[in-house]
Amino acid sequence: MSDRIEPRTLKGFRDFLPDAMVAREHVIDVARETYRSYGFSPIDTPALEYAEILLGKGGDESDKQLYRFDDNGGRDVALRFDLTVPLARFVARHVATLGTPFKRYHVGTVWRGENTQRGRYREFLQCDFDTIGTQSIVADIETVLVVHDLFAALGFERFTVRVNNRRLLNGALEKMGLADRSVAVLRTLDKLPRIGRDAVIEELAAAAGASAAEAFDLVALASLRGSFDDVLAESAGLVADSDLGETGHQELAELTAGVRAAGVAEERVVVDLSITRGLDYYTGTVLETFLDDLPGIGSVCSGGRYDDLASLYTTERLPGIGASLGVDRLLAAMEELGMGAPRAAAAEVLIVYFAPSLQEVYLRLATGLRRDGLTVEVYPEPKKLGSQLRYADRRGHRLAVIVGPDEAAHDTAQIKQLATGATETVAVRELAATCRRLLS
Amino acid sequence: MSDRIEPRTLKGFRDFLPDAMVAREHVIDVARETYRSYGFSPIDTPALEYAEILLGKGGDESDKQLYRFDDNGGRDVALRFDLTVPLARFVARHVATLGTPFKRYHVGTVWRGENTQRGRYREFLQCDFDTIGTQSIVADIETVLVVHDLFAALGFERFTVRVNNRRLLNGALEKMGLADRSVAVLRTLDKLPRIGRDAVIEELAAAAGASAAEAFDLVALASLRGSFDDVLAESAGLVADSDLGETGHQELAELTAGVRAAGVAEERVVVDLSITRGLDYYTGTVLETFLDDLPGIGSVCSGGRYDDLASLYTTERLPGIGASLGVDRLLAAMEELGMGAPRAAAAEVLIVYFAPSLQEVYLRLATGLRRDGLTVEVYPEPKKLGSQLRYADRRGHRLAVIVGPDEAAHDTAQIKQLATGATETVAVRELAATCRRLLS
Repeated sequence: MSDRIEPRTLKGFRDFLPDAMVAREHVIDVARETYRSYGFSPIDTPALEYAEILLGKGGDESDKQLYRFDDNGGRDVALRFDLTVPLARFVARHVATLGTPFKRYHVGTVWRGENTQRGRYREFLQCDFDTIGTQSIVADIETVLVVHDLFAALGFERFTVRVNNRRLLNGALEKMGLADRSVAVLRTLDKLPRIGRDAVIEELAAAAGASAAEAFDLVALASLRGSFDDVLAESAGLVADSDLGETGHQELAELTAGVRAAGVAEERVVVDLSITRGLDYYTGTVLETFLDDLPGIGSVCSGGRYDDLASLYTTERLPGIGASLGVDRLLAAMEELGMGAPRAAAAEVLIVYFAPSLQEVYLRLATGLRRDGLTVEVYPEPKKLGSQLRYADRRGHRLAVIVGPDEAAHDTAQIKQLATGATETVAVRELAATCRRLLS
Repeated sequence: MSDRIEPRTLKGFRDFLPDAMVAREHVIDVARETYRSYGFSPIDTPALEYAEILLGKGGDESDKQLYRFDDNGGRDVALRFDLTVPLARFVARHVATLGTPFKRYHVGTVWRGENTQRGRYREFLQCDFDTIGTQSIVADIETVLVVHDLFAALGFERFTVRVNNRRLLNGALEKMGLADRSVAVLRTLDKLPRIGRDAVIEELAAAAGASAAEAFDLVALASLRGSFDDVLAESAGLVADSDLGETGHQELAELTAGVRAAGVAEERVVVDLSITRGLDYYTGTVLETFLDDLPGIGSVCSGGRYDDLASLYTTERLPGIGASLGVDRLLAAMEELGMGAPRAAAAEVLIVYFAPSLQEVYLRLATGLRRDGLTVEVYPEPKKLGSQLRYADRRGHRLAVIVGPDEAAHDTAQIKQLATGATETVAVRELAATCRRLLS
């Protein structure tokens, strides 16, 4: 019919079907549980804010590809493009109530009108945690431990959290007289794994005015990695006599010692002086997380320390540290690695609908199995058995419970294991226990 | 400073602080678990859709108070105002992949630019579930059972699910020759609890042209309530000889029999012929849920059966039934009834930071307690003990673990119960077990 509307979605926006959504809910559940185990509490903020809040006074809108419009009341509003700016606004508003240190996590959707050609989405989920109001290295150590525990809890065995310290890098730049060009230098060094050593040396000269010798030293510094002790020993000379650099070096040493004290395996958290994080607001510890079997997808969880979160909104100085989990990238990686969702989208048990006269029997059986903790779906109609079993196969139920007039007369039920086709008949009073045994 | 931005939110939009958010996450978790126990699977759809999709061809925008704007690509887009329209679009698009029956739940934020004077919010959370692609009464029965189980699992002891059937009402109207004015009649009857009997009789005459006798009969019908059997017996005469009415009567009888078969207490689900649901798209079973101790807040979970969900987007006829949980209204009610969140926002245990020399001891203790399943926060700095304990009181930690040089030398720890101030000293190897005992 010509006046039917095509059920399409906007470019860069996605529907989530049950299997994808079960996997997503699992990652969020694990993240929440890990964050809570360290004393982080959940918050939420509005999706829509005054554009002024999101952009700041001199904000560069083009960087953020804001969804911005005038609402029905003529207010200049926009959809949030990350969870960090709303966090700054939130803390500035509520800090007197919250007190510090304040540890929060936030699972929320954000929107950016980015170019979709590069496989980017315009709506995606972030899952951030931050510790605000303390400069203690303990917060840095716990940030790394949270990331470690999160990936371990998700079932990853081969992942690496790479840590560095911006003060160490900036101290080295200070010694070279390049401190005033640190943003350009750090942005260039950040490209080392992608564009390679020679291109970085060239760009350091062109963009930051480094001499050939300086560029060579910088690349050597950024290339240091390995065991904590080795990297710390080798990098000490590069920052000697720079207060800033020595502070950074000391922080990195404390960070690695703390992580080790908490019992993390050496290969899971390494010092990597090439990690600079392109954004210029980090001031101390920085971290990125890579999956060893999928290095090409880049960091799946990144963060760092900042000196002053909310200076746009309050005179109170709020240092802190946090990290952000890239849920969508992580889910894509888990699918590529064959790490399936731990639970299928369907209920465990399908009760087959054989005859309308037995409808109430099915409802009673389902109630009993649910009371025993099982997830149960009653097929709603008396379709052919084969059609109902095909439905169960497609959906992913693991057991079908079949009760026809014979079974009902004898208070029994047939259980069919859908993977093997094996069938057994049990007394109704043993149904829940048998289902549990077959599912375990 | 004059160029600081005030950290305000938009009118009708809210920040959620940790305690409110923990309560919200709890309600969502319980809802998800209940929906899953019946075989419903999660889906998600974009917050932003083509305005055409959300409004339909002849949509009445003023009813929906849409947040609508042109995006950067010039597309006419809007934020979703409910989860039902996106569900219809979703099912129309994916029905071939999904198959039917399709049982989904959807937890999502929706936006409506409503008048905030009446305590309404412009951003709120919905938590819907639907069974699509079947006309079986089993789906209606399970919808009522899900609502029942959900409120029971949330800890409500006194709530009532009120059920009715639009076919029964429409059959009665048919007999009175008022079938062509059924929408006006049902909308008026829906006001019975709010405006009372006399005002409804008056409005039935004025708005629907009912005679005084008809209006009287209609109000008598809508006033029928009580046990399943009584209401069904008394209403049978009102629909005798109307096919539609008898079908509705039969469906209501099957619904109540099914709910009873599943073991639900009589007082939890009642037939109430005044429940009509103002919206005109319901065609069969309708339901509303009231908290017996807070009747004034109205229904906290409502839904019903529809004949054709997605006719705007597909030629496939998709009947179904579903209901929507009003999360915000429910949370307000739970607070009013003193039903606290089951878990505070804070971790269970705070490890006090006594001396920097013991920092690694604290990290190790915390790791050990977390491995034992406890939630643990390490205070990040060596502040005064009193100040750290005040922090724990304010946050809601239940135990403080204190290790100074003496305790460290003897491999012991002090545990302080924050509610009572009681303190005991235990060996570190017994710390987790003792904490668990004190917390249980």
